[in-house]
Amino acid sequence: MKISDLSESQLLALFLPIIDEHNQRVAQRQQGESPVLTLGPGDDCAVLNLLQGKTVMTIDTQTENQDFRRVWASGYESGGYDVGWKASVQNLGDIAAMGAQPQTLLVSLSLPGDVESDWVKDFARGICDSTLAQGADFCTIAGGDLGRSSEISVTVTAVGSSSGEPVRRDSATPGDVLAVAGSLGAAACGLDLLETPQQQLEELDDYQRFFTGQTRPAGALCYGLVAAQSAHAMMDISDGLLRDAGRIARASGIGINIDSQKLAAFFEPLRPAAACVSAWGGKQESPEQILLRWVATGGEDHAMLAAFAPDRVPTGFTVVGRCGSEFAPEAPVTVDGRVFDRSGWDHFSG
Amino acid sequence: MKISDLSESQLLALFLPIIDEHNQRVAQRQQGESPVLTLGPGDDCAVLNLLQGKTVMTIDTQTENQDFRRVWASGYESGGYDVGWKASVQNLGDIAAMGAQPQTLLVSLSLPGDVESDWVKDFARGICDSTLAQGADFCTIAGGDLGRSSEISVTVTAVGSSSGEPVRRDSATPGDVLAVAGSLGAAACGLDLLETPQQQLEELDDYQRFFTGQTRPAGALCYGLVAAQSAHAMMDISDGLLRDAGRIARASGIGINIDSQKLAAFFEPLRPAAACVSAWGGKQESPEQILLRWVATGGEDHAMLAAFAPDRVPTGFTVVGRCGSEFAPEAPVTVDGRVFDRSGWDHFSG
Repeated sequence: MKISDLSESQLLALFLPIIDEHNQRVAQRQQGESPVLTLGPGDDCAVLNLLQGKTVMTIDTQTENQDFRRVWASGYESGGYDVGWKASVQNLGDIAAMGAQPQTLLVSLSLPGDVESDWVKDFARGICDSTLAQGADFCTIAGGDLGRSSEISVTVTAVGSSSGEPVRRDSATPGDVLAVAGSLGAAACGLDLLETPQQQLEELDDYQRFFTGQTRPAGALCYGLVAAQSAHAMMDISDGLLRDAGRIARASGIGINIDSQKLAAFFEPLRPAAACVSAWGGKQESPEQILLRWVATGGEDHAMLAAFAPDRVPTGFTVVGRCGSEFAPEAPVTVDGRVFDRSGWDHFSG
Repeated sequence: MKISDLSESQLLALFLPIIDEHNQRVAQRQQGESPVLTLGPGDDCAVLNLLQGKTVMTIDTQTENQDFRRVWASGYESGGYDVGWKASVQNLGDIAAMGAQPQTLLVSLSLPGDVESDWVKDFARGICDSTLAQGADFCTIAGGDLGRSSEISVTVTAVGSSSGEPVRRDSATPGDVLAVAGSLGAAACGLDLLETPQQQLEELDDYQRFFTGQTRPAGALCYGLVAAQSAHAMMDISDGLLRDAGRIARASGIGINIDSQKLAAFFEPLRPAAACVSAWGGKQESPEQILLRWVATGGEDHAMLAAFAPDRVPTGFTVVGRCGSEFAPEAPVTVDGRVFDRSGWDHFSG
């Protein structure tokens, strides 16, 4: 059944029971403590008893054909589950990057009439499952909005609480090391394979496993919490390591040098996929060039990128660079001491 | 200049100074008190010191050609200022309907490449100006997201604080009166005129003044705060009086009867416009029928609709009906004791 066959209340009747069940499970897990969400979806607003301390908030939109496709060149179909999953990872990545605990999500879904009603149920399941898979056991879905559009558009607001001072991106200091926790390059690898015609992929063993880096990224929520104690600066990598490292460098007024040798640790799991993409592209890029592109400039992994004093790097973080005192506005980030010419994803250029 | 000619950071450089100036003015107004917004746009998350008490939150999306048109049949062009204005009113209406004080907004803007860069600046000004015009003097813009899309889509999350218990919609009781504060029918009137060809409008004196009911609704934020002390139940009228009264009735398990005589108070300012629309439609609807349709079923006025004990109706509210003990699931709301057959706006049906 298409959603154009349903009234708004019929559509809500598909969506809300999944959300309500999720919220009830969260409340059960909190047994004994007073619940954060005291009034869930259904009124003008949700009502929350947020944890004491600072509140952190972010908002992010995914749009069809910009951030995902319903059907990719590879034949893979991104369903509601994928889109819901990623919406949660994107937003909780921002909460984690402040060193904060996720509290709740608000979800707005704009849909064309030709979307199947199952898509909406899958979306609800995807966002709930992803939240749990990331370890956000106490994160409810407080409310939302449903409307019509000519392309799928999903906006999520995430709210978190921080008992201490949230970790900003403007406080890296010279002498810090720059370290990453989570996947790097997996989302870009998945994107390239999703955009590769299916017949080119058949050489690649179990190729669908690489799609998930793009369609259902793992996120790095737990690492954000681990790093909150010692990180001088932190952000999540949504637009690529070099571009996002540049943001820490600019905000902190420092220079950052990335050691390409250290990035090689992220190459290994992606190597078979890089060989496949290189062959398809007529080898205009070598597999090594592709791996470096994915790992250094690929966005959407939502790994944690943080600056630490060299002796205070937490378990799970891999040191990939170093912060220096010289800030060069035109090239705040270098790779092996040189300017690198591919600098990640810009939503507007080109 | 079109936004396709700009990079993401160039676009942000147009948008953020307007938001930052707004936030600075809010901070100046709060002189002496510790600011709610301690870190504004630019990091992964905004950081807030929310006021003590319950936090209320809502999210709402406006999509081009669903919620507004860039160019209407009347020739009127809805600019960024209108869209920003309405986004603020929609969301603050939900905060007000809980009896809460607005604290901050988060804004996500998805835009096609052919949108003029001035649209984006106008949007930022519209949302800031609207917030102030509604009396939300301490409401900041904490953060946002900018992305590409094939149609304009604007999502706003609003956050409020309530020192007491937020006013829900499920607590109206038999014997309560139902009352409205703010405009009723002005948004529907504006919509009908915006959709009327310009040559039909020229008979109507200063016809553009009616557009603003739809393009720049006034909202009723202050009435929500006034009603918080005594309202048993409250919501904002976003989908029409009858439809939204039905929601209070269903949630509270009561019946509501609207007195059509009381609605006439809202007819007067709209009467010249109703005559114009009636004439254009070949008088298939009489002016009186049009007025009743606008006032009883028109959405988007964001007036406050609340149930009070009869002796506790605050100044500014007009009693339009009464709550009875009998709940009829098929017709929870009657008009003059009879079922009314036009029941407001459904985002999905038709």
